[in-house]
Amino acid sequence: MSISKRPSPITPTVDFDLDGIQHGHLRLPWSRDESAWGSIMIPICVIRNGEGPTALLTGANHGDEYEGPVALFDLARTLKPEEIKGRVIIVPAMNYPAFQAATRTSPIDKGNLNRSFPGRPDGSVTEKIADYFTRHLLPLADIVLDFHSGGRTLDFLPYAAAHELPDKGQEKACFDGVAAFSAPYSMRMIEIDAVGMYDTTAEEIGKVFVTTELSGGGTISAHTASIAKRGVLNVLKHAGIVSGAPEIEATQWLDMPSSDCFVFSEADGLLEPLKDLGEKVSRGEIIARIHPTGRTGTAPSDYRAALDGVLAARHFPGLIKTGDCLAVVATLTEGP
Amino acid sequence: MSISKRPSPITPTVDFDLDGIQHGHLRLPWSRDESAWGSIMIPICVIRNGEGPTALLTGANHGDEYEGPVALFDLARTLKPEEIKGRVIIVPAMNYPAFQAATRTSPIDKGNLNRSFPGRPDGSVTEKIADYFTRHLLPLADIVLDFHSGGRTLDFLPYAAAHELPDKGQEKACFDGVAAFSAPYSMRMIEIDAVGMYDTTAEEIGKVFVTTELSGGGTISAHTASIAKRGVLNVLKHAGIVSGAPEIEATQWLDMPSSDCFVFSEADGLLEPLKDLGEKVSRGEIIARIHPTGRTGTAPSDYRAALDGVLAARHFPGLIKTGDCLAVVATLTEGP
Amino acid sequence: MSISKRPSPITPTVDFDLDGIQHGHLRLPWSRDESAWGSIMIPICVIRNGEGPTALLTGANHGDEYEGPVALFDLARTLKPEEIKGRVIIVPAMNYPAFQAATRTSPIDKGNLNRSFPGRPDGSVTEKIADYFTRHLLPLADIVLDFHSGGRTLDFLPYAAAHELPDKGQEKACFDGVAAFSAPYSMRMIEIDAVGMYDTTAEEIGKVFVTTELSGGGTISAHTASIAKRGVLNVLKHAGIVSGAPEIEATQWLDMPSSDCFVFSEADGLLEPLKDLGEKVSRGEIIARIHPTGRTGTAPSDYRAALDGVLAARHFPGLIKTGDCLAVVATLTEGP
Amino acid sequence: MSISKRPSPITPTVDFDLDGIQHGHLRLPWSRDESAWGSIMIPICVIRNGEGPTALLTGANHGDEYEGPVALFDLARTLKPEEIKGRVIIVPAMNYPAFQAATRTSPIDKGNLNRSFPGRPDGSVTEKIADYFTRHLLPLADIVLDFHSGGRTLDFLPYAAAHELPDKGQEKACFDGVAAFSAPYSMRMIEIDAVGMYDTTAEEIGKVFVTTELSGGGTISAHTASIAKRGVLNVLKHAGIVSGAPEIEATQWLDMPSSDCFVFSEADGLLEPLKDLGEKVSRGEIIARIHPTGRTGTAPSDYRAALDGVLAARHFPGLIKTGDCLAVVATLTEGP
Amino acid sequence: MSISKRPSPITPTVDFDLDGIQHGHLRLPWSRDESAWGSIMIPICVIRNGEGPTALLTGANHGDEYEGPVALFDLARTLKPEEIKGRVIIVPAMNYPAFQAATRTSPIDKGNLNRSFPGRPDGSVTEKIADYFTRHLLPLADIVLDFHSGGRTLDFLPYAAAHELPDKGQEKACFDGVAAFSAPYSMRMIEIDAVGMYDTTAEEIGKVFVTTELSGGGTISAHTASIAKRGVLNVLKHAGIVSGAPEIEATQWLDMPSSDCFVFSEADGLLEPLKDLGEKVSRGEIIARIHPTGRTGTAPSDYRAALDGVLAARHFPGLIKTGDCLAVVATLTEGP
Amino acid sequence: MSISKRPSPITPTVDFDLDGIQHGHLRLPWSRDESAWGSIMIPICVIRNGEGPTALLTGANHGDEYEGPVALFDLARTLKPEEIKGRVIIVPAMNYPAFQAATRTSPIDKGNLNRSFPGRPDGSVTEKIADYFTRHLLPLADIVLDFHSGGRTLDFLPYAAAHELPDKGQEKACFDGVAAFSAPYSMRMIEIDAVGMYDTTAEEIGKVFVTTELSGGGTISAHTASIAKRGVLNVLKHAGIVSGAPEIEATQWLDMPSSDCFVFSEADGLLEPLKDLGEKVSRGEIIARIHPTGRTGTAPSDYRAALDGVLAARHFPGLIKTGDCLAVVATLTEGP
Repeated sequence: MSISKRPSPITPTVDFDLDGIQHGHLRLPWSRDESAWGSIMIPICVIRNGEGPTALLTGANHGDEYEGPVALFDLARTLKPEEIKGRVIIVPAMNYPAFQAATRTSPIDKGNLNRSFPGRPDGSVTEKIADYFTRHLLPLADIVLDFHSGGRTLDFLPYAAAHELPDKGQEKACFDGVAAFSAPYSMRMIEIDAVGMYDTTAEEIGKVFVTTELSGGGTISAHTASIAKRGVLNVLKHAGIVSGAPEIEATQWLDMPSSDCFVFSEADGLLEPLKDLGEKVSRGEIIARIHPTGRTGTAPSDYRAALDGVLAARHFPGLIKTGDCLAVVATLTEGP
Repeated sequence: MSISKRPSPITPTVDFDLDGIQHGHLRLPWSRDESAWGSIMIPICVIRNGEGPTALLTGANHGDEYEGPVALFDLARTLKPEEIKGRVIIVPAMNYPAFQAATRTSPIDKGNLNRSFPGRPDGSVTEKIADYFTRHLLPLADIVLDFHSGGRTLDFLPYAAAHELPDKGQEKACFDGVAAFSAPYSMRMIEIDAVGMYDTTAEEIGKVFVTTELSGGGTISAHTASIAKRGVLNVLKHAGIVSGAPEIEATQWLDMPSSDCFVFSEADGLLEPLKDLGEKVSRGEIIARIHPTGRTGTAPSDYRAALDGVLAARHFPGLIKTGDCLAVVATLTEGP
Repeated sequence: MSISKRPSPITPTVDFDLDGIQHGHLRLPWSRDESAWGSIMIPICVIRNGEGPTALLTGANHGDEYEGPVALFDLARTLKPEEIKGRVIIVPAMNYPAFQAATRTSPIDKGNLNRSFPGRPDGSVTEKIADYFTRHLLPLADIVLDFHSGGRTLDFLPYAAAHELPDKGQEKACFDGVAAFSAPYSMRMIEIDAVGMYDTTAEEIGKVFVTTELSGGGTISAHTASIAKRGVLNVLKHAGIVSGAPEIEATQWLDMPSSDCFVFSEADGLLEPLKDLGEKVSRGEIIARIHPTGRTGTAPSDYRAALDGVLAARHFPGLIKTGDCLAVVATLTEGP
Repeated sequence: MSISKRPSPITPTVDFDLDGIQHGHLRLPWSRDESAWGSIMIPICVIRNGEGPTALLTGANHGDEYEGPVALFDLARTLKPEEIKGRVIIVPAMNYPAFQAATRTSPIDKGNLNRSFPGRPDGSVTEKIADYFTRHLLPLADIVLDFHSGGRTLDFLPYAAAHELPDKGQEKACFDGVAAFSAPYSMRMIEIDAVGMYDTTAEEIGKVFVTTELSGGGTISAHTASIAKRGVLNVLKHAGIVSGAPEIEATQWLDMPSSDCFVFSEADGLLEPLKDLGEKVSRGEIIARIHPTGRTGTAPSDYRAALDGVLAARHFPGLIKTGDCLAVVATLTEGP
Repeated sequence: MSISKRPSPITPTVDFDLDGIQHGHLRLPWSRDESAWGSIMIPICVIRNGEGPTALLTGANHGDEYEGPVALFDLARTLKPEEIKGRVIIVPAMNYPAFQAATRTSPIDKGNLNRSFPGRPDGSVTEKIADYFTRHLLPLADIVLDFHSGGRTLDFLPYAAAHELPDKGQEKACFDGVAAFSAPYSMRMIEIDAVGMYDTTAEEIGKVFVTTELSGGGTISAHTASIAKRGVLNVLKHAGIVSGAPEIEATQWLDMPSSDCFVFSEADGLLEPLKDLGEKVSRGEIIARIHPTGRTGTAPSDYRAALDGVLAARHFPGLIKTGDCLAVVATLTEGP
Repeated sequence: MSISKRPSPITPTVDFDLDGIQHGHLRLPWSRDESAWGSIMIPICVIRNGEGPTALLTGANHGDEYEGPVALFDLARTLKPEEIKGRVIIVPAMNYPAFQAATRTSPIDKGNLNRSFPGRPDGSVTEKIADYFTRHLLPLADIVLDFHSGGRTLDFLPYAAAHELPDKGQEKACFDGVAAFSAPYSMRMIEIDAVGMYDTTAEEIGKVFVTTELSGGGTISAHTASIAKRGVLNVLKHAGIVSGAPEIEATQWLDMPSSDCFVFSEADGLLEPLKDLGEKVSRGEIIARIHPTGRTGTAPSDYRAALDGVLAARHFPGLIKTGDCLAVVATLTEGP
């Protein structure tokens, strides 16, 4: 894929090569009816202390996922330059317009940032952000940690994850990062559709890439916040940027072996879950029902697991539409 | 308060005096741009078997609360006339337009049904629904069970509840109903503002009234669905409509002794909870932080408990606005 | 019903007592975000030639009905003072904001003008318009002709109509007006809900009131425009304002004997009509089907006539919702 | 035109090669704020009985046109595998999101499906649907019947139609299909702008392509539904898929010889038609007027036919804007 | 007019009787889909130093007027308790939701605060705010200064103003306040429609009430900000709350003798002003033109002054609608 | 940059080669839900009198800028063919949909016309307009005058301007046009981002191009209208199309030497300007403050000039957002 040579319209107000800590913005001009010469100001923090590896840490790739932003706003406020060796680049809310709107996609262009990579400097606002990461931030990084959760419409078991990759050395480095993150669950993922993902863009240029799903529903708990905060520090320790060993707890490895993992709704209605996240399910077992809502007395439709495993993700809102992913069943494994 | 004598525009398609089971609608004419002679059709189920008490069971008084609708659509489909003595009237989604829209209030008139009582036959759509309950359904009932949860923006410990009432006999009957429901928690509530509530309207005409808060966030789990389904059957058994004794489990009684229970946000920002629902908190302890989101490196504001107790409710979305209720701390008690 | 004594905020730019023709406005102040000191300017035409009766002619009581506005804008442009005796007051678009928006109700306050009478001088914009008609225009009139059609969501056989009234002399005068209008069909109407109607307000103060339904769908044809143009001239001739005898054509009298006339949808779906307007139908005959649209191969639901007669009105859009009026069956009669 | 090689994101839940009848969906993943892992489920029916030709039958290419969906939902429910030889593929609502919204274009991306061909697998939702037809469904077909009507803003005489084509053998086969459809009118069309049309895409790969315009206004009548139902069966008989001869009725052939057919509005206002569909018009004759609506007493503007013929199409809503097509005049001919 | 006895739902977080300076909020509960237990937090500042008169200072009664908020946020930040005698209550943005939205009326209920007095404790959000001022804040005040400007759609000469009042002593006190404010212009106003105004409510309970119009257009300049800042200090000095004499500059007194002052548009179009604010105009002189915008070459309509005077106010946006106030011509006078 | 060969969908209703004056439209087909066969009709006027140079005069490139449209609608109505030699092409409102909506960008596609050049014949509506100017109108022109003002969100000193160009002869011709226009100020501009501009497209094909900024705020004054009207006549005289010498008044030349000219907001809040347009400022001087609006008593942030000069432009609305351009400081020079 050829990448346009036109310069990015984004101007950083930080200098990536300075030692110390800087709190600034990525300024993206956004001319609109409400402000002819307005801009989007994406917060960024750069902490540097001499030579060493660079970690690029990101949250709110989807705007309604909160474990990443909480851990990263907190980290940017508390991590001291003298505590690190190398460089940490923190963007707590990548798709900042979506984050401000508390929506998965950008309210400006409905852009799903994680389907907009590698981006375009002359594209939509979301594509311009993707392009800046592709051409300016990813090349600076040795290791990349991108926080996800389920957002307002999905809920996940808390896990860190990496992908199967053609370069097995790179793959191993990624799963080592997952293990270092030390979430309660760890996942080996095969993406159904990896086109346009930040993950893929980073992996294709050889970066060590770790991602997460840490619950969802558009909320955050004290429990999942603490997983995220410990996880990011663990990754920095694993990378040798922060000194000390990662704080490791037991993790359950999971796998998504095929598209049979996914259960899709074939009706509109009221969702009645019969299994909760983390519960074991057997092939053929009913995991949820959908009740028609137009009148009482009509039979619900049943949805069943297609394989043995645990309920790893589920549709979050109480109502569901035809075509929505109702649940994901993952299989239990011993390791990546 | 005088109640208008004008007839309700609502026509039921069921006959409340017939034995057997009927699945029908409350038809409320709604002329609008999209349908000049359209109607709202609120599902209703009436099950009757000879003489006996009448239970009025309702869900989705607020449209984004799901434990009630799931338990009641399920009950209407499975409860047989021969299993009861007396009458059960089930309206699984009182504010049906709000329920269809998955919003707290009605998309038609922004009406909060639980602030619209006693209603008006010539008022807004929501006021017309309230009026029909006030003048036609409540008078039929001996016991009323109205399901609530936190909806999309609040989350609660799962509890059944009743109010302190001037008539102590009525109050005791209500708390007996709460005990029969047998949720994990049971609450004695004093409403800050009881004007316009369904609860108050029912209580003022002497009905036994039981309500609940069974989690929230605009979702439902297998766990909370099972609490709701067991609770409604327990109440019907307690009322003598279904035979057998209620299935009782241990409950923790809670109290909201004053407005000090409520913690309000004084800033817009990103919410970082430090305590989860059900955790014990001490007076003065920090329970959450709000991070400014415009730039990194700025200090969050801290929010503290004003009394000893447990975290009983919390703001659900990851972002919070000035003036939002951030948390409710309830005190532990031995009984109602 | 007591009517507020506060003066109307509406100022006419015409003088109702001047001989000759005046084209002006009813100016209704409307302060809003887009214009702090703005107004709604409702076109009005007054034609007067000495003493004689006054006719008040109105269209677009519902904003998406066009036979009235076409006939009345045309009449106001072509009728000469010297052709009349007495006075003609023409308001081609009563609910002018709705007419401009091509919607049944006002885009400003969602007001259905024909459910807003007698109106309030300090109410919503639509209530202010109703109040001006009630207190200022209706008192000037001897005969009132208010044009209706089905609007965007209903379609009717073309008819003029009047209501059964307690004062049989007034009722006869109204039906004489209907006969003079001379539409292809003539209807004796009993309103299901007459509260808030312009008709009722005019009838209660003793006016001769003629109304119409002249097709619908939010469109107009050359055929129905010619019915409207001939009808209004006929009514003016009948009232002695324009000289000459009404141009009478054959009409079929219809009756709506009970609420069995109305067929309501109990499903959302795709409407397949099996009968067209004006076709005879027998009791029990299927007149339409509703197809579910979520998948192919599911059975449609059938809707049947509840009495013998002709299809007099029908739901217009191709999709239909639960609770919409699907059809009206009227019975054939010999006269009013 | 080069077509992208990237696979379509659409997954069918039917197998096009199985004998018998299948009712399923085309599942198109649609990640959005309301459902992170949601899908659009486009109903599809495949009926197959051994070897033989394949007919591809489609409706709701524009979402507010109903004769096609009614005929095709009905056909999918009633046609038996044993009644055919070969294969029938039925998609009653091609632009399913637009059909659900009752709008011409998709509410998701404002895509006009019939201007989005050949489509793109990585484009907008509407372009993805177009691409699937181009690369997966059209190649399966021998004959294609695509139903159109005027939609909410246009009304047409009921006709089947085909285009003048460079391959005169293909053109004859298409007009033979038009004749077999046997609508009251049959049209030889020259498109003003054929870029992006389904028609053009199908014709360019050599398919026999028949289209229709069967009234409009966003409604459907019993009369036009019966034309559509008879027409589709006639086409299947003509193709040899259903046995028996088409049921032929008299048709009037029409032609649109030049852009003089089209009459455009040059003013905003209230439309007064002076001719109805099917009426003969002479060159220079006034067919409609547009009345200004800001005040009474202003002169309307007149619109005239530019050639002799019949009124074949017209603007449907009662109000009209500058630039809208007010009418189409077609000439009478003896055959295609 | 009787005022409801029900308590206001608003809770202040300041104590009006404490000496010193407090920065707090008026908390108004606002339950809505986005926050079930949310509130509106209206900033308020109370400065008190012993006994003495109370001034109530308000801005953003209309949300898009900025001289008041700038002067009052600045004053609340800079005025020290020790600089005053008595009490100053500052609400820089009365209709706070409108102020946040930069609109004249509230985005919540479209409430125009200055037409919502005396308000209702159980009314809309805007009516609740009005009620709190009527029953809680106005009774505390001796002198009231309410800042206005033209907002986004009007522009005014900068003036302070008071009304003709039945109590001539009160009227004189008000005009003395106007003179003390010392704006470049001073106006004697007769309101066309005083119903629902804050002014009227304050005047009817005998308060000294001073208001302003200080330019407009939804903007603010350094020049008008300085007029506002000097004016409010002058009023506090005049009231004896701040020591020292008001800083007086020359003012031109104006009068609006009748409704002939107002020039209304009778067309939609593009406004071409021929006179600017402050320019002298003569009776009959053209002050502006409105150009039709649908095509070039059409004649504009001319608008003329109906009396001799100066252009005191004008429509601000470049486009204008029928019924908008185009201009106000005021007459020059020697004093109030 | 290659330009697509596909023909423009725009049809002019004028003939550019006829002598005399023609008032017509550029008709751009726009199929949409509200009008299946609708069009956008952009007013255009062509005045021609024999051989001679062609001037292309345009306004409302941004839809909320009014000096251009007023001067050009006025010119098209008053300039006679016999007064010119050559040809004048007038498009008073280039982005006509934006002009009708009173917004900077098009309400149809949010297109900023001045960032959409050279355009695409198969792109969005705004890109189609740009393409028509690029391929059809600009090639006809010898000199181009494109009017701008600040629009609703910016305000400028009134100036004409041209750009530094690689071809110094062309540059001189442009600045000669600026001098001939004779606004109170004249500017030498270096665009920060010239991609997509009409200016750049015209300059790259060698045209003499003059632009303006003539105040702003979404309004127009008598003063700035007279500058625009005199300026356009001056340019026509300078080009030899209208006879006589330009009417020259004194102008102050300005320069924008670097991006230090621009002052950007780094906070949301209430803007308090301390300098007005045209006032001199010194490097380091505070020119404005931004007050936080959530509570009183918080410190505003100060914004300072980065160089010596005059305030040449400013943010217009009273509220400001992070990233908005707050002010532009230009330096005083002796000439271009």
